[in-house]
Amino acid sequence: MQMENMLAERTRRMGTNAIREILKVVARPGMVSLAGGIPAPESFPLDIIRELSDRVLAAHGTAALQYDVTEGFFPLRQALVEHLEKKGIQVTADEILVTSGSQGVLDAAGKILINRNDRVAVEAPTYLGALQAFAPYEPQYACLATDGEGLIPEAIEEELSRRPVRLVYLVPTFQNPTGRTLPLARRVEIARIIRKFNVLLVEDDPYSDLRYRGEHLPPIRKFAPEHVIYVSTLSKVFAPGLRIGFCVAPPAIRSWLVRVKQGVDLHTSSFNQALAAEYLSGGHLDRHLPGILSLYKPRQEAMLSALERYFPTDFSWSRPEGGMFIWAEGPETADIDTIYNNALARQTAFVPGKYFYPVPGPGQATMRLNYTMADEATIDRAIRTLGEVIRENLANA
Amino acid sequence: MQMENMLAERTRRMGTNAIREILKVVARPGMVSLAGGIPAPESFPLDIIRELSDRVLAAHGTAALQYDVTEGFFPLRQALVEHLEKKGIQVTADEILVTSGSQGVLDAAGKILINRNDRVAVEAPTYLGALQAFAPYEPQYACLATDGEGLIPEAIEEELSRRPVRLVYLVPTFQNPTGRTLPLARRVEIARIIRKFNVLLVEDDPYSDLRYRGEHLPPIRKFAPEHVIYVSTLSKVFAPGLRIGFCVAPPAIRSWLVRVKQGVDLHTSSFNQALAAEYLSGGHLDRHLPGILSLYKPRQEAMLSALERYFPTDFSWSRPEGGMFIWAEGPETADIDTIYNNALARQTAFVPGKYFYPVPGPGQATMRLNYTMADEATIDRAIRTLGEVIRENLANA
Repeated sequence: MQMENMLAERTRRMGTNAIREILKVVARPGMVSLAGGIPAPESFPLDIIRELSDRVLAAHGTAALQYDVTEGFFPLRQALVEHLEKKGIQVTADEILVTSGSQGVLDAAGKILINRNDRVAVEAPTYLGALQAFAPYEPQYACLATDGEGLIPEAIEEELSRRPVRLVYLVPTFQNPTGRTLPLARRVEIARIIRKFNVLLVEDDPYSDLRYRGEHLPPIRKFAPEHVIYVSTLSKVFAPGLRIGFCVAPPAIRSWLVRVKQGVDLHTSSFNQALAAEYLSGGHLDRHLPGILSLYKPRQEAMLSALERYFPTDFSWSRPEGGMFIWAEGPETADIDTIYNNALARQTAFVPGKYFYPVPGPGQATMRLNYTMADEATIDRAIRTLGEVIRENLANA
Repeated sequence: MQMENMLAERTRRMGTNAIREILKVVARPGMVSLAGGIPAPESFPLDIIRELSDRVLAAHGTAALQYDVTEGFFPLRQALVEHLEKKGIQVTADEILVTSGSQGVLDAAGKILINRNDRVAVEAPTYLGALQAFAPYEPQYACLATDGEGLIPEAIEEELSRRPVRLVYLVPTFQNPTGRTLPLARRVEIARIIRKFNVLLVEDDPYSDLRYRGEHLPPIRKFAPEHVIYVSTLSKVFAPGLRIGFCVAPPAIRSWLVRVKQGVDLHTSSFNQALAAEYLSGGHLDRHLPGILSLYKPRQEAMLSALERYFPTDFSWSRPEGGMFIWAEGPETADIDTIYNNALARQTAFVPGKYFYPVPGPGQATMRLNYTMADEATIDRAIRTLGEVIRENLANA
């Protein structure tokens, strides 16, 4: 039977998902991949999951297996209060919503806020998962200029003063894909601007716990609590497979997020929320996090020094103090598609940066490089290979 | 700040959720509630969860904690192939999509299929969770006439021949809220009709495993595989808190369900999917299910005989062979709102049936009675109380 005409218009208007195809290709056996964006399995607290599971069943019994309220398992929300306080966010358990990964907040926010053709302001490049969550609600994108320190405040003020924007979406710390971090002064300035124009900001903060150097920075929410939906996750510091995300939002917004989440999955897994509650309240995160940092820090340093050694001098790249990604940019003469294909032929993968732009065109000479999934020696070899492929390409340009 | 004007139009058009408020009220301590619709905690295989968890960690290690493909954890999809075969559905693992509860399928189906003001045909009364999942996509409802054997095929054929319908949603077995089950002949006839009009049916089948008497019936999908999105869940036979649902859909539809689910939660909890895979493939469901049936069967029988004893003769009710609900209907003179409030005053709760109609008006004299959450003695006492409250009300009518 003919299915296409059975689909809603929004579905027929959805584009393809290039990254997903890339990640399938690079999953081939033998491939050395800097393309992924996921935590290293050796970063998971596998050894204590059994202990956490026993504690959950002893402490909560069948309550951990039963339906629960959409807002989230209360002991987890209580534990998140303290977790958030360390990030400079002071809230009660009633102000927190637990979701199925931070993706769940992004979908719910898109659903309650975005009308078709509403304008959503995003950094360019930006996190693709957010674009994917918003896509069914069919926004138009206002792409905001960025530099080495992330979003340029003047860019957002100019955009907001020119045309109405439904919401702003930012990853202020160790951004995916660039690894860039907004300095404090820009956070304060952006908070002032969204308050001035009375626009909502979705502040996505999955990486700030993964800081290898420098000082922790307060979230933008701290300077505009009434205008920010603050989104975070335990996927990078506990286990992504458990799908535990959470958000803090203004009460009137949170109540709608709860309402639409109920229609999507009723609630996030009670059992996994109880595991997360034990992980946080039992002090396991505090004990386990240093191990994650000492796993990733040398990998990032290995990539940065390999880039110095092997990449041509007309390439530049970000030097983030944490997170999972480095963003490299070459001269206009660099043909990244050819470089990508030649690298694949040599069993080495990355993601061409152009795919992270909401509107195609820019970023033709950019690359996203992930360093969490490979050890230092492998990273050095992969960057050396990429350097060779790049030089060949530039020589033929 | 003023939030309302920040919301999308679809959000401002969403109605309130009466049932949710009712369930909050009846959660009061001391309340004897026949209002809920959830499994008894003593039906959960609590004693083997620890064993399943150990097996998952031994068999899959970090893979059970890592990100996974949106389609679902492969060992679970393999186990579901056999589970579905017992229901008369023959598919491969590649045709199955695992979701975060069956609610996840309903949201995804609404998202890919429903345009604003598209007509969705449903039984009246119907499952409220489906209406809640579809609500953000703003359908109009075509309410199909039902009788003691569920949907009347002529009603759907007449509806489809009159105006275009985007999809049909049915719970053919032990329906929520009525407990009614479509006989085989009607299943075959409805399959013929949806094929004839080339319309998609969402066949929601959460309860068919909970059969206390009679013969299992094949799903409608068996007679129209290319026109049915078959939806089911492990919530009633394993643990609802784990949020494991699944569906089988025509390939062109399934690929879109996968696509939009990726934007909603990336994938359903790997760890919980692995637990479910062990539960099914280890034969635990087959060993555990008889215990669930022997828990619920006497509760249902207690309610049916109490209704005979205590309810006035001008009340009638469904006599389902399984599931979780009985549907009672009184004479027009019965004022169910007053009966509901007087019952609450006597610490006894149920859900007035009128709330299960997509369009308000009908069902004013109906009641949904759940029998899975209370023991036989409590059920007998509750129905006696309701009988007394009803007689008082009818006497004053």
